[in-house]
Amino acid sequence: MAEKKVGVQSIKFKNPPLILSTATIVGKKEGEGPLKDYFDSILTDDLYGEETWEKAESKISRETVKLAISKASLKSSDIDFLFGGDLLDQIISSSFSARELRIPFLGLYGACSTMAESLCLGAMAIDGGYADHVVAVTSSHFCAAERQFRFPLELGSQRPPTAQWTVTGSGAAVLSKEGSGLCITHATIGRVLDFGITDANNMGAAMAPAAADTILCHFKDNNLKPEDYDLIITGDLGKIGRDLTLDLILAGGYDVKEKYSDCGVKIFDLDKQDVHSGGSGCGCSAVVFGGYICNELRKGNMNRVLLVSTGALLSPTSTMQGETIPGIAHAITIERRM
Amino acid sequence: MAEKKVGVQSIKFKNPPLILSTATIVGKKEGEGPLKDYFDSILTDDLYGEETWEKAESKISRETVKLAISKASLKSSDIDFLFGGDLLDQIISSSFSARELRIPFLGLYGACSTMAESLCLGAMAIDGGYADHVVAVTSSHFCAAERQFRFPLELGSQRPPTAQWTVTGSGAAVLSKEGSGLCITHATIGRVLDFGITDANNMGAAMAPAAADTILCHFKDNNLKPEDYDLIITGDLGKIGRDLTLDLILAGGYDVKEKYSDCGVKIFDLDKQDVHSGGSGCGCSAVVFGGYICNELRKGNMNRVLLVSTGALLSPTSTMQGETIPGIAHAITIERRM
Repeated sequence: MAEKKVGVQSIKFKNPPLILSTATIVGKKEGEGPLKDYFDSILTDDLYGEETWEKAESKISRETVKLAISKASLKSSDIDFLFGGDLLDQIISSSFSARELRIPFLGLYGACSTMAESLCLGAMAIDGGYADHVVAVTSSHFCAAERQFRFPLELGSQRPPTAQWTVTGSGAAVLSKEGSGLCITHATIGRVLDFGITDANNMGAAMAPAAADTILCHFKDNNLKPEDYDLIITGDLGKIGRDLTLDLILAGGYDVKEKYSDCGVKIFDLDKQDVHSGGSGCGCSAVVFGGYICNELRKGNMNRVLLVSTGALLSPTSTMQGETIPGIAHAITIERRM
Repeated sequence: MAEKKVGVQSIKFKNPPLILSTATIVGKKEGEGPLKDYFDSILTDDLYGEETWEKAESKISRETVKLAISKASLKSSDIDFLFGGDLLDQIISSSFSARELRIPFLGLYGACSTMAESLCLGAMAIDGGYADHVVAVTSSHFCAAERQFRFPLELGSQRPPTAQWTVTGSGAAVLSKEGSGLCITHATIGRVLDFGITDANNMGAAMAPAAADTILCHFKDNNLKPEDYDLIITGDLGKIGRDLTLDLILAGGYDVKEKYSDCGVKIFDLDKQDVHSGGSGCGCSAVVFGGYICNELRKGNMNRVLLVSTGALLSPTSTMQGETIPGIAHAITIERRM
């Protein structure tokens, strides 16, 4: 059971849920980036032996969950609940993955904020005593996302400098009430904020206000400050969104410059990999979390990290109907307790 | 904090969260059906003063949440978290509703099972000590759902007898850790099951196996039986799905015939309202729950109800790619404790 919420939006877990294992599977391009050594598996074929990109994404999600469960020396039947979501319409990647896995399933949609959302809810399920083991998972696929949200790849549309590159990959974590190692100590649930951005090729700017709001709220609710963290890392704002977020947090009274980075900036070599403003997609913060962050924490190179997955809540329909693009961000604190 | 889960998929809440209030807003057709006197508000115009059906659905969702909060004599700022989802791509109805409401938001997608999913997770948040008040909400809109999942209304496509009519409406509930009246005592989280149905106009058959599985699991996990309930009601199986579910539960060893009904059958007059197999959509079980079920419980006409919202996890893309239609169902027990 949790302590009473310390602020408006934050939870402090009384018995911080353990992260028993994480697993990551990524696409070829992600496997050529600076974090390549942190991932469990790098695909050589983005179709992963399937006929469509959507089916490939579902398989990536499913295999990542299986890998995480086996790394925790558990079986699927040991998992009480699966918390998962993705970017596709009606979250078919996750739903069809859950069909094969046969684990009781709670489907989520928080756009690219879904990894932190699933970790928050999974941690609540463990700490609240509702489950012994849960899995949190999200995925995304560049080709499936491009044709759904923007243009079919076959059109060869030119991408503006503000555009981001949807990560092909999935990250999963097994949470448990018992064990040792990494744990989730805090969660901050975000509000939906909209600063009037209308360009679906500038998601970083659309998500920056929500990212900054959740980070500021996290500091205030929990009486924490940038110095309490080794790393504060947003989900997938890219270069442009990262710079805007830094300014907004500074305006809120906290200097996070030395501690702050963004998963979308870290996952690719922005100068060499032709990804414009950086990585994006549910899978971006999922694989950076499961690969880079958790492994650096396990090695003892960091002790406490704030992961802030960020989502842009648009659909092609909302854009066509003249809506602006609201953003949302959820945060979790991951701590090393060896 | 919950007692340890009594079975594989079920939760028994130690301090059952209270349902402080419910609110329902429905469309014109739903307001002409047999449950019309149970709803708070019946729209005369399905566009609700908006320019598009999607914006209308978002407004219905938002106004229903506001109404539920005001019926509980609370303000939006008193609500810790909003749990919500809908059927539209990227759940834009709920996300844009959350933008206006400014309540920290956890987006869900469980197709038409979303009302029970949001009540399950909302109850976990209250019972676990993470929140004092939460709102659970879902919505659907006939016109928006038809053009997204099947054909634009303007085509005038003929509907087969197995088809169902998506409910236009939204239901919301305010859950609290303190108060008296109705409460949520148990939750059962469903698995994704697929019996190979491929016809998107026969959702009842696609969802029936999941509905029966969750109900049987609920009985076994909690050592409960049909006689313990005044009503066991599935989400939106319609006439065809209801009959299949009855057979499957009977084959599982429980005779629920005298206690069992379906929200999709109850909401419309199937002989007179030209809805074929019955109602469907997230909004279906949401408004039957918030309107009919909770009011009959409050009046003392029933004491214990099992609500089993049911979802078909398809998308137009999955159907075009030759996938079958898996189903899912989540259940909650609502009890009168005056």
